[in-house]
Amino acid sequence: MTAPFPHHYRIAQARTAASRARITAGDRPPLAGGPPPEFGGDAEAWTPEHLLLSAIGLCLLTTFDALAARSPLEVLDWRAETAAVLDRTPVGLSFTSITVDVELTVASGDADRARALLDRAQGQCLVSNALRVPVAVRARVVEAPAAAA
Amino acid sequence: MTAPFPHHYRIAQARTAASRARITAGDRPPLAGGPPPEFGGDAEAWTPEHLLLSAIGLCLLTTFDALAARSPLEVLDWRAETAAVLDRTPVGLSFTSITVDVELTVASGDADRARALLDRAQGQCLVSNALRVPVAVRARVVEAPAAAA
Repeated sequence: MTAPFPHHYRIAQARTAASRARITAGDRPPLAGGPPPEFGGDAEAWTPEHLLLSAIGLCLLTTFDALAARSPLEVLDWRAETAAVLDRTPVGLSFTSITVDVELTVASGDADRARALLDRAQGQCLVSNALRVPVAVRARVVEAPAAAA
Repeated sequence: MTAPFPHHYRIAQARTAASRARITAGDRPPLAGGPPPEFGGDAEAWTPEHLLLSAIGLCLLTTFDALAARSPLEVLDWRAETAAVLDRTPVGLSFTSITVDVELTVASGDADRARALLDRAQGQCLVSNALRVPVAVRARVVEAPAAAA
């Protein structure tokens, strides 16, 4: 399932107007990118801030799912919100907090195993591990009621 | 142009199938996310790796453009490719290199000023500054021929 290392990843960008860009990566649907409204951009463009949060949240899901598939653990549902605070600090403008709130649904009796796998996934997440700012993961693990016989 | 700090950014994800997710952020077009082909995913989904690279490359552009607007420096064209290598390391699987290759076109006589602004933008980029892995920026700055009188 995993190609031999090293892996090489690449994206391309072309500026379309001041601070706006078209971002492409092979066959993926192109993205319109720009600064967020907080920095004078518009609310429809994908921004560096939202792309970073998307990378962090998706990395946790794909890492978790890879571990769950091997375990195996059935994942019935996964919803997550990833949030960041950007603020002035003594060393300049920086992300001061990044949090992933996960709501995970597994089968009856699987909650403890799911929590343990989520901890492992957090430790192995390539994107979070590449960051200086710690990523806090807060999980609510729900067991689906056992199906009636 | 800039909203008061702190800024709060947020994205949401819902799992749509094993390791696949729909990613939303307000009014932005939703993204289909999943692992890359190198980890058993498909080539049409946005991956954590490609989203991270998009965040890095776009952050450099928007930061540069903000500085250029203040300078002022006219930016005629900006094309960039952002690439990363992911490899096994003594501390586990990690990004071992991240590079942004920029091809920037400015008016005749503006190349030195553009290079200086790009250096400043690199130092101020919120996403690169949040990373442990240094981001190398390689720039080719081209001056457009002066328009005929």
